[in-house]
Amino acid sequence: MSTAKTDWSVYLSGEIHTDWRQQIISGAQAAGLPVSFAAPVTHHEASDDCGVAILGPEPDYFWHDHKGAKVNAIRTRTLIGKADIVVVRFGEKYRQWNAAFDAGIAAALGKPLIVLHGPEHAHALKEVDAAALAVAREPAQVVAILRYVIDGQLAGYTDTRQAAE
Amino acid sequence: MSTAKTDWSVYLSGEIHTDWRQQIISGAQAAGLPVSFAAPVTHHEASDDCGVAILGPEPDYFWHDHKGAKVNAIRTRTLIGKADIVVVRFGEKYRQWNAAFDAGIAAALGKPLIVLHGPEHAHALKEVDAAALAVAREPAQVVAILRYVIDGQLAGYTDTRQAAE
Amino acid sequence: MSTAKTDWSVYLSGEIHTDWRQQIISGAQAAGLPVSFAAPVTHHEASDDCGVAILGPEPDYFWHDHKGAKVNAIRTRTLIGKADIVVVRFGEKYRQWNAAFDAGIAAALGKPLIVLHGPEHAHALKEVDAAALAVAREPAQVVAILRYVIDGQLAGYTDTRQAAE
Amino acid sequence: MSTAKTDWSVYLSGEIHTDWRQQIISGAQAAGLPVSFAAPVTHHEASDDCGVAILGPEPDYFWHDHKGAKVNAIRTRTLIGKADIVVVRFGEKYRQWNAAFDAGIAAALGKPLIVLHGPEHAHALKEVDAAALAVAREPAQVVAILRYVIDGQLAGYTDTRQAAE
Amino acid sequence: MSTAKTDWSVYLSGEIHTDWRQQIISGAQAAGLPVSFAAPVTHHEASDDCGVAILGPEPDYFWHDHKGAKVNAIRTRTLIGKADIVVVRFGEKYRQWNAAFDAGIAAALGKPLIVLHGPEHAHALKEVDAAALAVAREPAQVVAILRYVIDGQLAGYTDTRQAAE
Amino acid sequence: MSTAKTDWSVYLSGEIHTDWRQQIISGAQAAGLPVSFAAPVTHHEASDDCGVAILGPEPDYFWHDHKGAKVNAIRTRTLIGKADIVVVRFGEKYRQWNAAFDAGIAAALGKPLIVLHGPEHAHALKEVDAAALAVAREPAQVVAILRYVIDGQLAGYTDTRQAAE
Amino acid sequence: MSTAKTDWSVYLSGEIHTDWRQQIISGAQAAGLPVSFAAPVTHHEASDDCGVAILGPEPDYFWHDHKGAKVNAIRTRTLIGKADIVVVRFGEKYRQWNAAFDAGIAAALGKPLIVLHGPEHAHALKEVDAAALAVAREPAQVVAILRYVIDGQLAGYTDTRQAAE
Amino acid sequence: MSTAKTDWSVYLSGEIHTDWRQQIISGAQAAGLPVSFAAPVTHHEASDDCGVAILGPEPDYFWHDHKGAKVNAIRTRTLIGKADIVVVRFGEKYRQWNAAFDAGIAAALGKPLIVLHGPEHAHALKEVDAAALAVAREPAQVVAILRYVIDGQLAGYTDTRQAAE
Repeated sequence: MSTAKTDWSVYLSGEIHTDWRQQIISGAQAAGLPVSFAAPVTHHEASDDCGVAILGPEPDYFWHDHKGAKVNAIRTRTLIGKADIVVVRFGEKYRQWNAAFDAGIAAALGKPLIVLHGPEHAHALKEVDAAALAVAREPAQVVAILRYVIDGQLAGYTDTRQAAE
Repeated sequence: MSTAKTDWSVYLSGEIHTDWRQQIISGAQAAGLPVSFAAPVTHHEASDDCGVAILGPEPDYFWHDHKGAKVNAIRTRTLIGKADIVVVRFGEKYRQWNAAFDAGIAAALGKPLIVLHGPEHAHALKEVDAAALAVAREPAQVVAILRYVIDGQLAGYTDTRQAAE
Repeated sequence: MSTAKTDWSVYLSGEIHTDWRQQIISGAQAAGLPVSFAAPVTHHEASDDCGVAILGPEPDYFWHDHKGAKVNAIRTRTLIGKADIVVVRFGEKYRQWNAAFDAGIAAALGKPLIVLHGPEHAHALKEVDAAALAVAREPAQVVAILRYVIDGQLAGYTDTRQAAE
Repeated sequence: MSTAKTDWSVYLSGEIHTDWRQQIISGAQAAGLPVSFAAPVTHHEASDDCGVAILGPEPDYFWHDHKGAKVNAIRTRTLIGKADIVVVRFGEKYRQWNAAFDAGIAAALGKPLIVLHGPEHAHALKEVDAAALAVAREPAQVVAILRYVIDGQLAGYTDTRQAAE
Repeated sequence: MSTAKTDWSVYLSGEIHTDWRQQIISGAQAAGLPVSFAAPVTHHEASDDCGVAILGPEPDYFWHDHKGAKVNAIRTRTLIGKADIVVVRFGEKYRQWNAAFDAGIAAALGKPLIVLHGPEHAHALKEVDAAALAVAREPAQVVAILRYVIDGQLAGYTDTRQAAE
Repeated sequence: MSTAKTDWSVYLSGEIHTDWRQQIISGAQAAGLPVSFAAPVTHHEASDDCGVAILGPEPDYFWHDHKGAKVNAIRTRTLIGKADIVVVRFGEKYRQWNAAFDAGIAAALGKPLIVLHGPEHAHALKEVDAAALAVAREPAQVVAILRYVIDGQLAGYTDTRQAAE
Repeated sequence: MSTAKTDWSVYLSGEIHTDWRQQIISGAQAAGLPVSFAAPVTHHEASDDCGVAILGPEPDYFWHDHKGAKVNAIRTRTLIGKADIVVVRFGEKYRQWNAAFDAGIAAALGKPLIVLHGPEHAHALKEVDAAALAVAREPAQVVAILRYVIDGQLAGYTDTRQAAE
Repeated sequence: MSTAKTDWSVYLSGEIHTDWRQQIISGAQAAGLPVSFAAPVTHHEASDDCGVAILGPEPDYFWHDHKGAKVNAIRTRTLIGKADIVVVRFGEKYRQWNAAFDAGIAAALGKPLIVLHGPEHAHALKEVDAAALAVAREPAQVVAILRYVIDGQLAGYTDTRQAAE
């Protein structure tokens, strides 16, 4: 039976310094999946400065950050709330506490959570992984999951008849 | 009055070894009902192996199952959550604990529940049936229910004027 | 500003022996309001018999009623849950406990409630009226409320410029 | 095992002209059940006049009723919200729409509902009964249900060892 | 990546005597944002009189106001409930308790809140501002926030490649 | 029947410059009501300065206020969330937007709301009053409401037998 | 630090033909844990017949079961709703669909779920296990989990100082 | 007025290698505050090994961690869910993604959040801080906040009469 009428929305949270989001989006498009993707603003400087750029400068950098983080939250909290699936990527750089924070929000909202990270972070991320429905290492695995859960296609398993069901 | 603008979504949970889903879908299509159907992935081997096929093999079969069950849950929990009506079919084979588990989820979410099973399982399913709004024996009865609750059509009762209302 | 993109859904609960629903629907259509209406099945015999007609006869009339009431609940609970506004009409005939029951459901779900009844029932309906956002006597008043809350049009007050806002 | 540490709260809604509440309370006390009961104010005149008596008179009886119904709602909505079980009694007198309204609230809140009425009202109450977990005719049956669900005691079935469990 | 498929809805609450709503709507349209705006009925006399104009006159002005406020609530509560973002404007005139009341509703519903007011009201609005994700002085700042959170565009920061992402 | 086992909690929001809270508390104590009262910190200077006094000074008064308002919100949001009934008093001084904000929070949480204000504010508070279950002018009326809804006692109506029920 | 003031409630669902519940209760008592346990009525005949014994006989066994299952649901749904932790035991006998149904309810309500079953059921229970926070084989393991999560005591790991924290 | 009857529960999440929890607990006890504190199990090795120690060893360390993290989640998710206030401490060591994850859960549940960290982490924690109601540097500040929000006491501001209110 067809799930073609069901559009899925996927929020891509976390690391902003590699092209993992684009790999997932390209893969999903190549597979023809009915998915719309959302994400935080990934322009690092804009993300840091949006609060003061729009609402006025702050001499104290704490409030500079605070105003920006809240403006970004208008976007991120809304889009996580609308998402069917939340993918969170942990990379090499920075503390990435905001990625873990997003994962906590997704978990508390009952959103299916896919975590994407290398094996070197497995111990440090065990609480996040324990709340996830999948722990992937590569963006291509996330695409494969989306292809399976949305279209029922699994490489090597699904013949044409099943796929057309 | 018309409910034509309201699309209904129906999730078909449970037994995967007979064509009961296809009978319901065909019947609903023949009746011209504005319904979209959803279901778990019904390819048995793909469903069992999806976790390890995508995320890597597990020597311990418990974790093989665990990874697969979680990947399937991304699909099933999301689609049950979006459904207006949940139909759960209990058949002859296997333990089918996942069918009863889905019924429990649907009940706790307040989804209208239709249970489909033969009379030989009535006693064993009394708690599930007690939470259901209809207990049917045949797929055709589920189609008749959908036709009535969505279009107000009941064979032998509804004349043209009512139907057009 | 335009609310044209917002479709409103209105559930019309209660009395099924007069044409009050058609009056409201015709009035809303004449006013060009972006509203879709929903209602219980209003074919009295079909509504009473739907359970046994589909799922098999019951010698005990209590269970005859029970099966029918549950099948109807699949429709009514779903449509009340999807409604933006619930209108409940109390008429002259019968006990109409199901109308008051629907009103209670709507109130508990936080749905805006419009009650429609004659002045002779005001005392008996004081608890229901106290939970309502409007108590109307005539279907035309319900249309006027919908026209105002959806389009901002109030006869004698709203000039063209406002209406076009 | 003991459920003695769990206090149950039961709200008794509906008819106020017979002593059915006192029968249930006395029966529960005689059975030593850890239940606290709550109810609307059952002094008919006080219930009708509480709004104007406290907040000032109203020449229009609609608003007289309205003020009273809202003051009563402070009590009834709060106590229904706190109840583990809601019992609704439909009697002979009056329209009793407020009883059906309370039943709708209880149903929407997911409260276990016990309905108490004579067989002559079965057809008119079929929607309410369909949402209930028990339909009783006599207060003594409600006591027996409370004794079973709270203490696991069923006359003729449960021996001492079980009861002490 | 594109968020073009996500339509945002923004509710504009508060002051009705200046053209701040039109400034925001025009700005958002000029920026090509996929936003639909909603608001209370801003025709002051219609808003005050809608209850009695539709449902009948009241000699006591308290009930005149009461009927109108409830009819308006059908619109405002529904549209705030559907909004992704709630903007509340506090101006110079009147007490504007309804604006602060709407802000409280938005906060309790977890809606991202943008407050718009001059610096002279900062101390009096500190509780409302503390619950907001942005405190703006000018309608143009609200437009800039919408442009950033919806399209990721920030004047002076976002180059073409980012914007097209 | 006794509701003595049910303790009620009442939150007293709003004006802090008259002794209205003490009047209500004294009245409830005199009536022997099982009520616990909660309120914001009513020491005006402490309330304004708590943020900076504990967490460090801010040269910009906006952030001085912001830190204080958030620390106060830890108390007020928690206590409103725990309250069975919320009373909001609007007085003569200041803008009192925080009182209306609290009323909005209470309304959105479905808390029974009692509003206390003089007749001169009736028009400005019509939206808040429309969401309330009682609109009182004097603290003694709030005590009378609590006495009625908690103990079922109404001066001049309730005889001994009823009261002891 | 002490969690002694926090009483935990644990619901023990599922198989009723072995003494697993008593093993867990005895173990928790021996460990001095502040836990109260709840369970369905475990007297098999009483559980089957409670509906007709209290509310009157049914010639059709489907309705005999139905009435009983609903009366039992008053107890089980209430106690699962109040539980902090839900333990579900799957044994050898019967279909045990009600155990899986309870597990589904617990999962949808977000209750921490502990599943207790032998390795021979691991594949059939993979969906239930995937939603659980622990999968145990023996009642003693459930006691060990309760001791750890409630008191922080883990055999071989926790020294006196930690335990007293 | 007294809030003495209201017991507050505070969950202390995050860093486990310094005595910050004990400082807060001692400070609250010295101030006589009616607070009960809860926390994760802070014995590092027990926390890491609890899953395999109770439920059996795992050769793959990923599943070793996974079982432990889930058993810990039974405790942490339950206690965060019961908390009135959640305090999250970020220290020097480790990635502490679980602390940010807990903060995300608390934020999504609407729990008042107090974040405790040094100024060197302000930029990396800006998203978490933006969701908090207070950002403290020292445990003593958390005690001061608890003293203010629970008892209304602020050093240097609150005289005896206020405190006794």
